[in-house]
Amino acid sequence: MAKTSALLLVSAMLAVLAPVNGLWPQPRNLTTGSSALKLSGGFEISIASSLYNAPQDLQQAISRSHGFLQTDKLERLVVGRGDVDKPALTKAKTLSQLTVSLDKGATVQSITAEAQKPIEERDEGYVLDVPADGSGATLTANSTLGLFRGLTTFGQLWYQSDSTTYTIEAPIHIVDSPAYPYRGYMLDTARNYFPVTDIKRAIDGMSWVKINQFHWHVVDSQSFPLEVPGFEELAQKGAYASSMVYTAQDVQDIVEYAGARGIDVLVEIDTPGHTSAISKSHPEHIACAESTPWASFANEPPAGQLRLASNATAEFTANLLVAVSKLFPSSMIKTQASLNATGLNFTQALTAFTQQSHNALIKAGKTPVVWEEMILSFNVTLAPEVIALVWISSDDVKGVAESGHKLIHAASDYFYLDCGGGGWVGANPDGNSWCDPFKTWQYSYSFDPVANLTADEAKLVLGGQHLLWTEQTGPSNLDPITWPRAASSAELFWTGPGLNISTVLPRLHDLSFRFQQRGIQTIPLQPLWCALRPGVCDLTA
Amino acid sequence: MAKTSALLLVSAMLAVLAPVNGLWPQPRNLTTGSSALKLSGGFEISIASSLYNAPQDLQQAISRSHGFLQTDKLERLVVGRGDVDKPALTKAKTLSQLTVSLDKGATVQSITAEAQKPIEERDEGYVLDVPADGSGATLTANSTLGLFRGLTTFGQLWYQSDSTTYTIEAPIHIVDSPAYPYRGYMLDTARNYFPVTDIKRAIDGMSWVKINQFHWHVVDSQSFPLEVPGFEELAQKGAYASSMVYTAQDVQDIVEYAGARGIDVLVEIDTPGHTSAISKSHPEHIACAESTPWASFANEPPAGQLRLASNATAEFTANLLVAVSKLFPSSMIKTQASLNATGLNFTQALTAFTQQSHNALIKAGKTPVVWEEMILSFNVTLAPEVIALVWISSDDVKGVAESGHKLIHAASDYFYLDCGGGGWVGANPDGNSWCDPFKTWQYSYSFDPVANLTADEAKLVLGGQHLLWTEQTGPSNLDPITWPRAASSAELFWTGPGLNISTVLPRLHDLSFRFQQRGIQTIPLQPLWCALRPGVCDLTA
Repeated sequence: MAKTSALLLVSAMLAVLAPVNGLWPQPRNLTTGSSALKLSGGFEISIASSLYNAPQDLQQAISRSHGFLQTDKLERLVVGRGDVDKPALTKAKTLSQLTVSLDKGATVQSITAEAQKPIEERDEGYVLDVPADGSGATLTANSTLGLFRGLTTFGQLWYQSDSTTYTIEAPIHIVDSPAYPYRGYMLDTARNYFPVTDIKRAIDGMSWVKINQFHWHVVDSQSFPLEVPGFEELAQKGAYASSMVYTAQDVQDIVEYAGARGIDVLVEIDTPGHTSAISKSHPEHIACAESTPWASFANEPPAGQLRLASNATAEFTANLLVAVSKLFPSSMIKTQASLNATGLNFTQALTAFTQQSHNALIKAGKTPVVWEEMILSFNVTLAPEVIALVWISSDDVKGVAESGHKLIHAASDYFYLDCGGGGWVGANPDGNSWCDPFKTWQYSYSFDPVANLTADEAKLVLGGQHLLWTEQTGPSNLDPITWPRAASSAELFWTGPGLNISTVLPRLHDLSFRFQQRGIQTIPLQPLWCALRPGVCDLTA
Repeated sequence: MAKTSALLLVSAMLAVLAPVNGLWPQPRNLTTGSSALKLSGGFEISIASSLYNAPQDLQQAISRSHGFLQTDKLERLVVGRGDVDKPALTKAKTLSQLTVSLDKGATVQSITAEAQKPIEERDEGYVLDVPADGSGATLTANSTLGLFRGLTTFGQLWYQSDSTTYTIEAPIHIVDSPAYPYRGYMLDTARNYFPVTDIKRAIDGMSWVKINQFHWHVVDSQSFPLEVPGFEELAQKGAYASSMVYTAQDVQDIVEYAGARGIDVLVEIDTPGHTSAISKSHPEHIACAESTPWASFANEPPAGQLRLASNATAEFTANLLVAVSKLFPSSMIKTQASLNATGLNFTQALTAFTQQSHNALIKAGKTPVVWEEMILSFNVTLAPEVIALVWISSDDVKGVAESGHKLIHAASDYFYLDCGGGGWVGANPDGNSWCDPFKTWQYSYSFDPVANLTADEAKLVLGGQHLLWTEQTGPSNLDPITWPRAASSAELFWTGPGLNISTVLPRLHDLSFRFQQRGIQTIPLQPLWCALRPGVCDLTA
């Protein structure tokens, strides 16, 4: 027995208005027709001769795209599924080739190199043409990264009916590029550990929705699973187990896997807060490690902070951060500052400490990224290029923008994937999660990235991301807690706000089913009865 | 960045008090020692000669239990894991045999036959003895069902360190039997479909925590996936797809699989409400099928009700229910009555309709089970043996008990697994689930089965269950949304209420990790840091 609030009316008209295509994120300029078009058995994706020196990661991306055309086997989500299109397919033209080429004068670099450029220098735009008459389709862009985005879009155009792979919307013309340069996803691998294969599967999902930034919250108070050259003792003593360490080789593997999929890896090292794991190997740098009662020292157990005022500790931290930054080619590095202390002396100590760390990073060519309280609570003087992640509340966006720092939306009230799952702290029968309620894809999708901002402040918004803190998540539920919800911010920050959640739901169902065909365990958003009937399970107030 | 409410104190003392064993549910009489005891390489579970005619399902249960001893490979959840016990193991005695026997004079029946007896006639008690000196362990019971429960307990005693399988709590003496006869789990396979393999995996999990009743909500308005002999057209027309039908063979397979694991299958057929799927093949029996706006006709789309006042419809329904009851050997069958109409004429029609169905079922030897509103809202006159499931609210338990009907706890405010996941209805950006918040295992565990009941009313409580409605659940998230939460009601109704949630958490962690070793994707309840440190992440108000 299940209830929904009464006195609401259905608006089945939406079924008619909803675009039936499964493109996600929705391209910013899209025109489609109503002709059926089949892929020929020998369909090929060929690289234009002008791209004779195509980078290896582009060639591999093309062969993966070609593979998906054969393995997706996704039937359209309509009553009758693939059978309903059989009549239209009898007289459909056949497409035998997609030609991929770079714009004249574009410099040829690998997808990885393009993806790892500073966030505002990445060129992700592309133009995709799929004629209805069977003449060759074309994909062009000004960078291999743009070509990769276009290949991702191309892969979402096709459905299966028996052994036929087809679209019913030819001709298709797409001119696309992102509304915001930063579209991310954060995973915490410190509270619970995730094997490399799980991280790679998450990266696959990110790439399918054009997320371009993996924010890797790799270490925290609970564990330090990162092997850092020169600081190996941190993982040896601070990881949950020797089998739960990301070796330097694992990191390179993940960074390359992400890069080849158009994703840059923003690593985060918790310091000076959340560092009890460091005390295992460096007690000399840590105050109140695992102190009890932990609630007086930290938001969650175990407590532990670096000794801010100690020169040796500040130097240790700066050296550690530089060593970590060498493992990650990204132009950015995230440094964490979650502290319970405040006050003038504290601010002075934290400022000195932070400036020493940030100066070392800036000298190493990195842009530091910080959590909002570094600006709003601790009044630390930061270099102007420092980027802030707004996490506590969307209400804080305005204040951060007024500081003049560029910012990334990560507000817990819209984008925290772990909210609503109940309290995880023990001996707390009535405990619910601190950031209740659960953030539905619909609610995240309704977020306005420039609410209350002036035109100048709006320019500071780089984009946004969903975040997954893993007190109650492990490899067993990584997929269902993340997907398809995280796709909502991916579209919000690629396509831009303003689309109607009723018209986008059928596309999100489609994406979710395609993810499952590709091995990611997305949750159903509705009963299949609703998924097959766009709009019929909608409510309008 | 994650927060927990501040100003709370840790009580690490619990770490000392918490039993380190991983038994779940906790046996009602348990004494343990502190000696280490190893299983010998050739350890055997042997059936006493007095049980020369051991039923096949008991023999198979014994070989599965033997298999788990080799494949669980679970290390103890302590800092250092299996290594910490190595010193104790050097001088540990070795156990080479467990002997399984029935009490003198017990009649030998299969586990299946014992499990399918009327709910209050099942004998699930057992006595388990594991001496510390290496002399043989013994398991005795008055029924093969009791022996099966004892084998399940025995399988939870053992940990792995390198290649050694051992306990550190010998000698162990257990005299156990359930506090309540009904311990269930409900799965809805109509809103979204679950392949037989997923249902069997759910049954595995149920059996490991001694749940004895699988409440199978097999059909509903959205789909009718059940092939009923003589009514094949219902599934042919009402299932989501021909590949999404439970054939009579599938049903037999599931019923036998459950029976062999000590579980009876209580099937539920939705009638007269939630029957739009029936209209596909029998429009003559259905009113307002898929009417819009659906919100005016039903709690969720699609609407559709049998024509209560039609004799032909009442006869059709009675015949259908009897045909279904023949597929399921259980002594019970669940008939659904979720209706929006009320009023005197309606009550008379529903009473006549229900009595015709129930009389047919009672004549077929079945006890009807109904949802609470049959009693509280519709004032239908029911046969005295009819059992009621209290689902709307735990506040309704008292009223149902006052009606004199036996009852099963299934209150949405404690036991609905789908709550807190956000609204699934479309075009509803702020929609949260109607039964927010998420029901944590701790909250479900804190339920008092006899709150506000007189001693006589308390005798009407048969037990309780968790329930999973699947608007937002499919095979992809069945395990994580169910486990380990559903284990909390399994212990509550086996062991009885009153245990401290702090002392039980380490056992629940243990169970959860053992489930994962056996292939069920439970969610982590806490960061591993906490799981390895019993009590240290607890709060006390």
